[in-house]
Parts: sequence; structure tokens; C-alpha cells
Amino acid sequence: MVWDPLSSWVVGRPTPKLDAYEKVTGAAQYADDILLPGILFGKILRSPHPHARILNIDTSRAERIVGVKAVITGKDTAGIKYGVYHFCSDQLALCIDKVRYIGDEVAAVAAIDEDTANEALDLIRVDYELLPALFDPLESMNEGAPRIHDYAERNIVVSPVVSFGDVEKGFSAADYIRQDQFETPGQAHCALQPFTVVARFDTFEKLEMWTPNQSPFVKRRVLSKTLGIPMSHVHVRKSHVGGAFGGRSEMMSLDFCAALLSRKTGRPVKIGYTREEEFIATRKRHPMIIEIKTGVMRDGTLVAKEIKLIADVGAYASTGPIAILNGPFFGVLAVCRIPNFKYQGYCVYTNKPVSGAMRGHGVPEIRFADGLQMDMIAREIGIDPVEIRLKNAIQPGEVLPYKSKVTSCGLSECLKKASETMRWSQRKGKMPQNRGLGIGVGSCISGFHLGPRTTSAAIIKLEEDGDVALFTGSVDNGQGNETMLAMIAAQELGLKPTEIRVISADTDLTPQDQGAFSMATAFVTGNAVKRAAADLRCQLIQIAADALETNAAEMGMGEKKIYLKSNRDLNIPFAEVYRLSLQKDILPVGRGSFTPKIDDLYYSKGKHEGQFTNAFTFGAVAVEVEVDGSTGKVKVVDLAAAYDIGLAINPLAVEGGIEGSVSMGLGMALQEEVVYDRGQMLNADFTNYSFPLAIDMPPIRSIIVETRDEGGPYGAKESSGQPIVAAVPEAVANAIYDAVGVGITSLPITPEKILRALEEKERSP
Amino acid sequence: MVWDPLSSWVVGRPTPKLDAYEKVTGAAQYADDILLPGILFGKILRSPHPHARILNIDTSRAERIVGVKAVITGKDTAGIKYGVYHFCSDQLALCIDKVRYIGDEVAAVAAIDEDTANEALDLIRVDYELLPALFDPLESMNEGAPRIHDYAERNIVVSPVVSFGDVEKGFSAADYIRQDQFETPGQAHCALQPFTVVARFDTFEKLEMWTPNQSPFVKRRVLSKTLGIPMSHVHVRKSHVGGAFGGRSEMMSLDFCAALLSRKTGRPVKIGYTREEEFIATRKRHPMIIEIKTGVMRDGTLVAKEIKLIADVGAYASTGPIAILNGPFFGVLAVCRIPNFKYQGYCVYTNKPVSGAMRGHGVPEIRFADGLQMDMIAREIGIDPVEIRLKNAIQPGEVLPYKSKVTSCGLSECLKKASETMRWSQRKGKMPQNRGLGIGVGSCISGFHLGPRTTSAAIIKLEEDGDVALFTGSVDNGQGNETMLAMIAAQELGLKPTEIRVISADTDLTPQDQGAFSMATAFVTGNAVKRAAADLRCQLIQIAADALETNAAEMGMGEKKIYLKSNRDLNIPFAEVYRLSLQKDILPVGRGSFTPKIDDLYYSKGKHEGQFTNAFTFGAVAVEVEVDGSTGKVKVVDLAAAYDIGLAINPLAVEGGIEGSVSMGLGMALQEEVVYDRGQMLNADFTNYSFPLAIDMPPIRSIIVETRDEGGPYGAKESSGQPIVAAVPEAVANAIYDAVGVGITSLPITPEKILRALEEKERSP
Repeated sequence: MVWDPLSSWVVGRPTPKLDAYEKVTGAAQYADDILLPGILFGKILRSPHPHARILNIDTSRAERIVGVKAVITGKDTAGIKYGVYHFCSDQLALCIDKVRYIGDEVAAVAAIDEDTANEALDLIRVDYELLPALFDPLESMNEGAPRIHDYAERNIVVSPVVSFGDVEKGFSAADYIRQDQFETPGQAHCALQPFTVVARFDTFEKLEMWTPNQSPFVKRRVLSKTLGIPMSHVHVRKSHVGGAFGGRSEMMSLDFCAALLSRKTGRPVKIGYTREEEFIATRKRHPMIIEIKTGVMRDGTLVAKEIKLIADVGAYASTGPIAILNGPFFGVLAVCRIPNFKYQGYCVYTNKPVSGAMRGHGVPEIRFADGLQMDMIAREIGIDPVEIRLKNAIQPGEVLPYKSKVTSCGLSECLKKASETMRWSQRKGKMPQNRGLGIGVGSCISGFHLGPRTTSAAIIKLEEDGDVALFTGSVDNGQGNETMLAMIAAQELGLKPTEIRVISADTDLTPQDQGAFSMATAFVTGNAVKRAAADLRCQLIQIAADALETNAAEMGMGEKKIYLKSNRDLNIPFAEVYRLSLQKDILPVGRGSFTPKIDDLYYSKGKHEGQFTNAFTFGAVAVEVEVDGSTGKVKVVDLAAAYDIGLAINPLAVEGGIEGSVSMGLGMALQEEVVYDRGQMLNADFTNYSFPLAIDMPPIRSIIVETRDEGGPYGAKESSGQPIVAAVPEAVANAIYDAVGVGITSLPITPEKILRALEEKERSP
Repeated sequence: MVWDPLSSWVVGRPTPKLDAYEKVTGAAQYADDILLPGILFGKILRSPHPHARILNIDTSRAERIVGVKAVITGKDTAGIKYGVYHFCSDQLALCIDKVRYIGDEVAAVAAIDEDTANEALDLIRVDYELLPALFDPLESMNEGAPRIHDYAERNIVVSPVVSFGDVEKGFSAADYIRQDQFETPGQAHCALQPFTVVARFDTFEKLEMWTPNQSPFVKRRVLSKTLGIPMSHVHVRKSHVGGAFGGRSEMMSLDFCAALLSRKTGRPVKIGYTREEEFIATRKRHPMIIEIKTGVMRDGTLVAKEIKLIADVGAYASTGPIAILNGPFFGVLAVCRIPNFKYQGYCVYTNKPVSGAMRGHGVPEIRFADGLQMDMIAREIGIDPVEIRLKNAIQPGEVLPYKSKVTSCGLSECLKKASETMRWSQRKGKMPQNRGLGIGVGSCISGFHLGPRTTSAAIIKLEEDGDVALFTGSVDNGQGNETMLAMIAAQELGLKPTEIRVISADTDLTPQDQGAFSMATAFVTGNAVKRAAADLRCQLIQIAADALETNAAEMGMGEKKIYLKSNRDLNIPFAEVYRLSLQKDILPVGRGSFTPKIDDLYYSKGKHEGQFTNAFTFGAVAVEVEVDGSTGKVKVVDLAAAYDIGLAINPLAVEGGIEGSVSMGLGMALQEEVVYDRGQMLNADFTNYSFPLAIDMPPIRSIIVETRDEGGPYGAKESSGQPIVAAVPEAVANAIYDAVGVGITSLPITPEKILRALEEKERSP
């Protein structure tokens, strides 16, 4: 076979998204665009109390309203709890005995329109017995604190301890030791499309569902289990997704409620969350308290680090157990070599809305803390921040303390390129007053072990007219996955991406996919699609070679034709290959499947050791800020982001990923925080929850670093910009530290915090 | 591989249709059930004249009506003609220069509801120049008759001559010669679901269409060509089909009009025919005039036959060229051995509604004629009708004069079993007054050459829970194709048919299928599905064998498990095989494709010779009637139908096919006829067009004869009952002849015709 995938026909060329026109013209179908005959509209009744026992629910008045077709409560569910891990599956479709946060789901109504449904909610009477509530994870962990979930002692979901080397010995050997405490708040995804679901149960107990989600196959499993129906009775269908950022990894109550209401009414049911519900009743980034003690040698070499981290999961565990290991494993140990390391994490319940996966998922939080401390250390021992990071940077081929091999690594190159772009060495230390330069690094994974759902597969079918249909279970959250996968198929088959028809994200029609999370699509689904396309290519070339009475090695492929390399005029168009193939009773169908050979963070050998990802990605962000000394306001003046992505299959999408990551990272650094008063979210709307707008954005100098990983398709690792989002808060905090000499240890770094710190600094000697 | 498909786990067992419950509860979605947001309703303006030139169409008043969204005429079409063969593609989506029958399509309207659309039709002004019209094919064929289509001299579409042996010599040698003329009328399919289409053009010039049809892949080709858009822009989707009987083989004007109106309005458009339109504007059985001259030896051996046949195709050619060859080739030469044969067929235009494919498609017509003449000959030379048929019956392995091999043949067995069931030999000749016994035979094909569309392919995918998804482009017209195909897949995989999820009849999702016509599904698609399932079976068994460290030959399959034959307790469930397979990066997908190695009736060697079908099927019907001598009314007292189907995959469906064929055959024999007055259909409704109701049906003794064809899946050939529908009119005509001694040579055999014949018989000496 001679087709050379690296002759770069498609891969590596900036390619507009295949669905761009559809989206900008409004033709793309989102869940809220779906109207079905007889459709009903659902609304969910939420708890007004942070912690209470449900004594009684009286739905009779609501049911009597004209236009109300069904009211359901926890009693209408199978009462099966769901969650990310079996050991902490703790959430119900609708609460049965207790409510655990203000917003917890108590009942749901389906009616002929939303107004009627809302009216009915007002008439549902719930009798509660109030329970003492916990809002601070430290209080939750007190002996004798009321339990939020019966099983969880001291309200702790998990509290893993991880240790490599001998941390005590390390600290004894260190020339310099520093210990600090940091805090990071909750952050909301603010996806522009609010959660909306349409569910239709037919009379045969078969469920169709349209819901924005990062993995229809994971949803199918959870729906099957929670509704007590066979997997083959659940059909999760494609609709466009208006942003996910980790927030659409799990089922939400509306999904179950729509299904249950549809089953009860025999009619399709749509539930759409308001923006307020979107803030309160979906996942958010985990608020964290992070304590770090670091020991270094005089030359900046790290010798020991001890981290204690408390993550506030809110009322339900969700992805908490993952978030508290992502930070130390991928946010710390994958970016710096630390011979002696100890970590103690706590995943703790409170009576607040639920935390979950969000871009970076534990990594940006710990990078902010660890990176700001590193700059403090660097300043005190007199080393340049870039230099200290380079000195300790993980290198290609290294095996990390937890036995994961880093197959490819562009961390040092990212550090160099980002700092050089900002003319770091020329300018650092010579900045005008109140201006500063900061550096941050980030790392991330390309796929993660998520139980049985980790395989991606693809089927590619040649069509009668020579076009190609790609069946993939993958989801495009808006980041351009479909375009990327079409590019891979096109590359392998000598086609244009527009000649690939993508059928995606449908449990009935497409093969299994691991899901568009854990940064897995490029690596895992990408490999599956590449294999499927190569399989088809071999079939087509063989058929053409037979027809031309030559052998496959003599054949080339391009422009929807298979030609003799020595004489391109001797060629067979794909449509003719299709015909020839059928004459031989061969249906030209390629298939590919890819299962990462990686270990589970929790179940691998019981001690948090193994290969935890296919490949690591890296990034570095250098940023220049100006701080207004009288107001404390920070202006980000310039920013360079270098991103080791392995290979950029679609550089246009990768740059988009970098820009989005910068925006989210800046929001996290400077603006974003969900604020509660005794469990009641105070800023659950776009007026009071502030995130960066276009006008807030600095120029972004995107630098793509291509280390070509041995396992990824064409060397690609991921494309979502996660190392960048991880590096931004660290870089910004350090730039502010550089500009005005105060290290703000809690996010977001608001003008108030800076002013207070400047005042304190002035007061102190 | 040891799995024995003939151990009959599923195949051969009477199996209720998988979609039966869905259909009887009303849940099944037909095209008319589809509602889309913003949908418009279309209506078509039809010509009131049988033949006229269109001088001008003024749509301005219609366009001004509130609620009318678009009006289209021929000018809005690409003006590309379509048809079954290139040489007679003569029909337009909407007429441009001329109208050719009362009902021909002139313009179409899309409006917010049907009433508004109808109102708009009334306001479209069309100026016509009337042209002389032709209603009798004999008149059409006169030199100097006005031309209906410019290209067709003497209005003849085709006039093939076929000759084998030396017919003149044959007649010279014959002991007895008889010549008769017969007539058969138009017959309507009367499918319970009227034609209805929903079309949606999106802003990217992509068309989605739901339309009851016998082959989405054929529709895709015609739509692509006629609308001038690439094939990949046409998506023909599944909706249930409420009966087809050959009548849904072609595109109808409503399909094009809905597409064009949707393109023009940017909104989905639905058009549903009224029952009257259904009668007038869709296809019907060809009216035929059949002249037969037959020479036999004293012992009944056929020595020569000459047939002249004129088929009235109406205003457009449609399937006429096929219909006029089906009769002699499959209706005559496949049931009796004739050494010297000559045939002259004429396919002739008239200014009447269009004829097309209908159950039997040329065979029942000629069987009636040939079979009634055979009984007349038998009576005159003193041979029993069953005996003369047996004497001349084609036998297994015979090669027909046109070089088609009859691989399997149960004709003689059918004749014997049908007659024995009616106790023929004991009762024939000893019947009470006005009672008679009649015999008829039929033959049909299993698949036909239809150009590039003849291949069927299938994909079978193992699912996560061990269920199986079968992707087939095949259509279920109501005859149970999906169930039959699921049974084949289930048989091959040791599953229950209900464990196969069938995804069918969708050009975007399913592989190509030849279409549910020409009796091809069991043989062609059946073989493709069998191959795909066997392919998957081999993959699964190999994976299980590897896991159990044994070889595939040791493994058996059943109950969703693969087991060690020597110890069934050692087994691996399918869901686990799925998991194991993915671990090895193999996606368990089976594929199969089947392209019949058969020739094209028109293009094969230019002389109508070759293998024209995969296999021949046969049938014989014996019937007892009672004729009321005073009214002429015929009561069918009893009926036995023996059907050589190769093998009955689903005997329940086969019996249904036999019963439906008997009903249609009886309608053709005794009741059905579309009646015209100068081109105007007079009985275009269910009040005036009479067909058999439940109360009219005799007891039906279904006899399945299984000859197990070497090429069909498990020996199956077809399952649609076509040889039975072909045999019924012959049998009934002969039974009436037996009962009252008059041979009625034109269908339907109405009481009036019988009374008139009895009067004439009395008058004559």
C-alpha cells in the first residue's frame, strides 16, 4: 500500500468547520428546535432549602389544572442512584427522602405549555423537615457534623493518599522550603446553549432522546440503568451541542424527568432549563482549598512537595474523585520532576450545588497554586521563573513517579517559545511601573480510563456516487470534532473533507464512541477513524488493482479516483470502484476500532499507579499585565500561548481551542466565581456572573508545537486547549506578582483583593 | 465453522411480523403522520383534457391568495424526463408543452392548509389548444394517427419480436390448432395507504424525503437526476408503507412537486393524494389484447404457439416494455415446454392514465388467456386439464428456449397437490349442475436485472448489550420483509428475531438495496443478509474461541452466547464477546453483498436471450365455482393454492402472500376493471370500483411446496405469492367454463358477460 498519509493532502491544513454555514445561518438543529406532534413542556420543582427531609408531597392541586398532563415525584422513579463511579453513585432522578441543596429536584410537571407547567409547580405542596446544613467543606469534615449522605463518614466521598519517594527526607535535604495555602472558587461553564432535552417514549417502552451531551453511549447506559429498560430500548439521538466544556458529561435531572414524563403521558416532552437553572442545577468547577509545601535546592531543583487539597463537591459526588487526582497527577507531576512527593486529597460534601467536570478539571486550580508558589520561591532564591520551570521540566520519554510514560513532550519548547514571543529575557525585570510579565505551564491528557466506555469505533462506507459516509459515535460539542474526523477520513482516502458525510452521535446508528471528554477524541476516535478509512482504502485499491491487472503497490489515490502511479490517466473513479466491488459481492465498508491500553486511576492495582493516558499534552502561557494601582484593576496587555498538541490536524480549530482556553483561563484568573449565601447562589445570571467579553480579551499569540506522538493519528494528541486553560491563571497571578509585588492566593484576582494586598504590603515592613 | 443454519432455529417457523403491534396500535409512522415545524400542504392541478397543447399558464391570481406560499409549473422544473428505461424516458415532473391524459400534472401549489391550496388550484388559468385524443391502442397504431409522443412512430413504445424454433413448421406438424383472442382490463392496486410524500429541502440544497416507495435507492437516483442535485444531497428516509403491489416502484409527480415546492418555499411540504387521484394519477395494470394460436399433438403435447399482444401503456411508457415480455417469457415459456414459439408484442400509447407494474406484471393476463385456451383445447381433444398441463410442464434443470436455466421447479408438484386437495380426479366431470372445477398455473421470477440497482447489501453490527443491528436498504411494503430479514440474521446468529434491530430503507444510513420489487427481496437481499450475518458469526466465534483457547470448530452459538460444544457451561455471552472484541481493536461488524449474475431482458446480447432471473417460482390453483344460471353470478366455493417458494422462511408471511394473491386474482377474474369514457375514469373511488371484500373470499387451502433452490438463502426463492395471483384468473375462467360450458375471453368475468354468453350458447346450434 503506497498511499502516504503524511503527504498531507488534508491533515494540517486550516479547514473551516463543515457545519459552520449551517450554524451561522441558524439551520443547525439544537434540542430546543425540535418540535414533535403533541409535544408537552416540562418544568422541575426545586428545593428552597439546602438540607431537609421530605415529609410529604401533595401534587393533587397541580394535577387538577387544565393543561397539566402529568406530575411526577421521586415515587415515579425506579429509585436507582447514578453517579460517575459505583462507589459514589449518590444521585436520584428526583429526590425521595431528602433534599441536599437549594435547587435539588423534587417534582416535575408536563403541561401543554411552559406557563401552565410553571403554574402547576406553584401548586405542588411539599412538607419539609429542615435539617442543619453545611456550606463549608472544613465544617463538613468535622467529627459530629450532620451527614449529608448516610454512607459518607465526615462527609468525605474519598480521601486518597498518594506518596512517591520519601517526602520527609526530601524536605530535610532541601535548601529552601515554602508553604502556602490557596483557594479557588466555583466557576460556571456558561455554555451558550442551556440544557434542553426532548424525550419520546413510545408504546413499546422505547425511548428516543435528543439532548446536548458529550457522549450518547454513556447516556444510553445511564438511562437504561436508571429507567430500568434494556439498553436496546434507549435511542440517544444527535442534536447540535452549543458548548460543553465538560459540563455535558453526565445526565441531568431534566433528562430523566423528560423521559419519565413522556412515559407517563405517552407524548413527547421537552424540558429546557432557564439560565438560572443552568447555573444552579448543572455542574460547576470544584471550589478547592490547596495547601502546598515545596522544598528546593539552591539552584532551583525541586526535591520535595507535599500537597493537601480539599475539593467541595457540593451535594453530590459527581466527578469529584477524578478532579482531586487530576490536579496532582497531571497538573503537578506531569510538568515538574519531583523525586519526593506526597499528596492527600479530600472530596467533601456540602449542601451546595454540585461540582463536576469543567475544562481542565482540577488542573488549572492546582497549577495556579503551585505556579504562584513557584514564582515566590524563584524570587526568593533569585532564579528566573522560566528558568526554574525549565530546570524541573519533564522531558520526552520520562516515566512519571506513578509509572505513566510521557511518550512525547514539548513542555520545554512551549516554555521557550511562549517566553521568547513575549521577549521575556530582554524585558523581564525591566518592565515599566505596574507592568509585569508572568509565566504559567499546563499539562493535560489524551484520553482517560473510563470503564467500559473507553473504546471508540468507526465505520466508513463507500457510496454509489463515490462519496463516503463516516459513521462515528463521536460528538461535536462545537470544537470541530466532526470536521477533524472527516479530515482524517479524507486524508486516508484522498478526498476533500466535504466529500465525507458524517453520521454521528446516535446510539442506534453509529458505533460506540468513548465520548467527547477527557480530551480523547483526536487520539482515540481519531485512531479509530484512521483505521476504518485505511481499511476501506485497502479494499478499494485492491479492487482497482485487480481491475487494472496490476498490484496494489502500483496504485495511488486522489480526486475520487484510484490511478496507476506510473500513469495517472489510467484510473478508476470511486463510483466505478463501487460498482466493480458490488459485482464481486463485496460491499466496500471499512471498520476501525481503538481501545487505549491505559489503566484506571482508581482501580488500577489499587494504588494509583499505571499508564493513565495515551499521551500527555503540554502548554505554556506568557502574559503581560498592567495593574492600575489606584483601582486594582488588571488589564491583560499581551499574551502568548504555546501548545504541544502532537500535531494539529486542523490548525484553525486548534487556534480556536487556544483562544477559548485563554478566555476561560482569564475569566478564572480575574473575574469568575459563583457566590453563595447559605447555599443560595447569588449570581445565577449573566448580569451578575461576570466572564470575559470580546472587549476584555488581549491579543493572543497562538503557537502550535508539534511533537508528533508515536501513538496518535499522524502524531496528534488532543486539540481542546486544556493545557492553556491550566496555564493562564498561573501566568496572570505571576504577572500581577511581577507588576505590583503581591501574590494573591485566591481566585479570582479581583481589584478588591489587589487593593487590599497593596494596602497590607504598604502597612507591613 | 459448525453453526448449522439448517438446524432451523428460526427459519421455517411461523413468525408474527416484528412491526405487527406497532401497526395495529397505530403507532407506526406513515408519511401522512409526519408533521414538521412550518410544514405546508401541496395540491396538484391536473389536466381536464386527454390531449392538449399548453399555451399559457397564469398563476398570478393563485399566488395572491393569503396562505399560498408557492405555485410551480413545468417552468420551475429542470425539464428532465424520467422513465424506467432510457429509451422511453418520457415523463416530466410537471407537463411543459402538452398534457396527455385527463389527470396529467400541470401545476402545483403549496399553502398553509389543504383548503387554501385547493382554492388556489381553482384560480390557476391554463389556456389549452385541444388535440385529437386516442383511447384505443388499435387506433393509436394506425398510420397517420396523431402522435402522443413525438419520438414514437404509430405511438408504439417498443414492439419486440421473439422467436424460438420454427413456428410454421410446428403448426404444420400439429394435430390440432386453435386460435383465440382475449382481453384484460386495467386494474388498480387499491393500496390502503394513498400516496403521500413529505419533502424538506434545506438551505444547503439537501433534500430529505419520506414517501411510501419500494426502493429508496432507485428514488434517490431519479430525484438526483430530475432535480439536478448530487446523489449525496438526496436523503430518502423510511416511513411505513401501506401496501405497494408494484405500484410504488416509480416516482410519482407528487414526489417531485413536494421537493420543488419545498425548495421554493424553504419549508417542508406534504402532498397526499386523494383516493380519486390515487386511481387516476398512479399506475395501474396494463389493459391487454392477447391473440394466441396454439398447435398440439393428439396426446396433448404442445408443438407450436404464436402470440400477439398489445399492451395499452396509457400516456407514458412506464414499465410497459417489461410487462410485454414478462407474459410470454415467465407466464408462458416458464410453465410449458413449447418447441416452436413466436411472439410479437406491442407497447402502445393512448391518452389514458398510465399503466405500470402490478402484482404479476404481465403474467396473470397472459396466463388467463393461455390457460383458458388450453382448457378449450383439452376439452376438444379429450384430455384432462391437469393432465395436459402436467404433460407439458417444465421440469427442474430444464433450460428454457431463451437460455434461462430453471434451477428448481415444483410446477408438477404444485399441479398435483392443488388438484388432489380439491379431489380433482374423483370429482372432475361429475360436478352438480352449474358447478365446475378449474385449474390454473403460474410462474414468476426471483429478481430481475434492473441495471445498476440490482445489488443488495447488508451490514450487521453487534451492540454493547449483545443485541444486533441489521442495516438493510430493503423496504417492507407490508409483506413482512423486515421480519424475514431479521429471521435470516437471527438464524445465522442463534438469536431470536426480536433481538435484531432492523434499520431499513434509508439512503443515508443503510447500504444499497435492489428494491422490494421483481420478487427479489428473499433471494437477493436475503442472500446479502445471510452473508453479512455469517461474516459476523465467524468473527464472534473466532473471538470466543481465542478467549477459550480452543478453535472455532469446537464452538456453538445460541441464546446470545457462544459456547464450547462439548460443554455448554463453558460459554461467553455476546455482550462479553463485544467487550473482548473491542479490547482487540476489532469492531464486530459483518457485511454481505449479493449481485445476481443475471442478464438484462432488453440489453442482453440484443436478442432477448440469457439468464433472466435467479430462480423461477411456480404455483397452481384449483378452484371450485358455482354459477347462478339466472343471474350469471359466480360464487367461488373452494380454492386450493400450491406455491413452490423454494423454502418458506416465514410460513406465516407466505400464507399471507398466498391469501392476498388469491384476493387480487379473484378481483381480476371476477370484478375489477377501471372504466373510462373518452379518457375520463368513471369509477375512481371505492364505491364504484369493486374488489373482493372479506365476505367474498372462499376458504383458501394454502399449500407450500419447498423445492429448495440451490442459490437462494436456505433454498428460498421468493415469498410474494406472484405465481398464485397469476394462476387464479385462469383457474376461475376454467372453472366457469367447466360449470356452464362458456369460455369468457375477457376479464373481468362479470355476471353480464356470463349471461350473454349463456344466451348466445343457447341460440347457437
